[in-house]
Amino acid sequence: MSDFGTHNYIANLSIDCVIFGYEEQELKVLIAKCIYGDNLWNLPGGHILRTESIEAAASRILEQRTGLKDIYLEQFRVFGHENRILESKYRDILHAHLTNKYDESTANWITDRFVCIGFYALVDISKVNPQKGELDEKLELRGIKDIPEMLHDHQEILNYALEALRQNLDQKLIGFNLLPETFTMKEVQELYEAVYDREFPMNNFQRKMLQLGILERLEKKFTGASNKAPYLYRFKK
Amino acid sequence: MSDFGTHNYIANLSIDCVIFGYEEQELKVLIAKCIYGDNLWNLPGGHILRTESIEAAASRILEQRTGLKDIYLEQFRVFGHENRILESKYRDILHAHLTNKYDESTANWITDRFVCIGFYALVDISKVNPQKGELDEKLELRGIKDIPEMLHDHQEILNYALEALRQNLDQKLIGFNLLPETFTMKEVQELYEAVYDREFPMNNFQRKMLQLGILERLEKKFTGASNKAPYLYRFKK
Repeated sequence: MSDFGTHNYIANLSIDCVIFGYEEQELKVLIAKCIYGDNLWNLPGGHILRTESIEAAASRILEQRTGLKDIYLEQFRVFGHENRILESKYRDILHAHLTNKYDESTANWITDRFVCIGFYALVDISKVNPQKGELDEKLELRGIKDIPEMLHDHQEILNYALEALRQNLDQKLIGFNLLPETFTMKEVQELYEAVYDREFPMNNFQRKMLQLGILERLEKKFTGASNKAPYLYRFKK
Repeated sequence: MSDFGTHNYIANLSIDCVIFGYEEQELKVLIAKCIYGDNLWNLPGGHILRTESIEAAASRILEQRTGLKDIYLEQFRVFGHENRILESKYRDILHAHLTNKYDESTANWITDRFVCIGFYALVDISKVNPQKGELDEKLELRGIKDIPEMLHDHQEILNYALEALRQNLDQKLIGFNLLPETFTMKEVQELYEAVYDREFPMNNFQRKMLQLGILERLEKKFTGASNKAPYLYRFKK
């Protein structure tokens, strides 16, 4: 029997995860290439067991796709248009493929209307071990400027996640794995510039960041003989 | 046949609405007294038709309870603990009453697990015409400091709605019916003090509010002969 279906999961309710990481001064997102279709990508997602909370479902899906436990997750928006799946141009393609693998009622269940709860996660890319799901050909971390066309409304879901991250980046910095244990102010600024996709004036940025009161200044970072060595910071414990 | 059930609605997914209004320097919320139980209150809520978006469902529920159309609504959080209904101390009370009115399967459907999408609305209280739902004895606008014990996790839902409103009140002021067409700075400040439940220093408040750039200063409000008459403001068009 297929794992999908109302015997295990809540029908018509799904979760999609926008998994952000930061690497080489670029904000990246984990996306999956579907085994169906020619070049069909989507956000990692899944369904909610009848016996688990929505947060537990999101954590489970995240662990299945990244190998990571205890990652901070935040719900940011529900996507509930009545036709977001039913009138998606990808629905018929998916349904035809699914009936080759599953019985008709399972294929119908998977491609029925779904209200989607969007969660985003911030992960340390170096620790991610991408794991394919049942319908994935492969997973990739892609720069947010390099996202291919995605299934259904997944680009819209990503856009909202990015907006939510931008709105609260100051508060979300703490303990969030987007930066190493210690870092220079320039590294924080590069992270902000990658997330917001714009430049910040340096002096202003440093003042604003210190005003947040979340950073602790450590020793200088001596990589050479320069007396211009930058200070290192870490998040206050 | 009952209106409830999966033939009409998505199962296991509900909407609860936190309907805020502002009156006599107090932030108020519309709550319903249930026809069951001794003194059992809840937030106005309902289910999502299979053929409507979640936003349309929330608007429909809001119109049914207030008589108001085209009210701004905002989803603020999903409440998805697996036992928020199933282990609520009110579930058995509700189920027993419901089986007197509906058949067993309908009573089970209504008291099954539900993932709840929370929406909040900001309304002009003078225009609200409270309408009882099928399970309401009456509806009341209550000050946020005067909310009785509510069903399930409805107090938690209200708390999150208030937190969401506070986080974005500056942006949410525009066009939101919490203030009359024109108003004095003191009236804006009183609104903030009611929502945040604390005092704001007057000079600071006025400067901050004007910095937002959303208010347009009009003529003075001459109610007497005083040269201390305050300026009137309105939102920029």
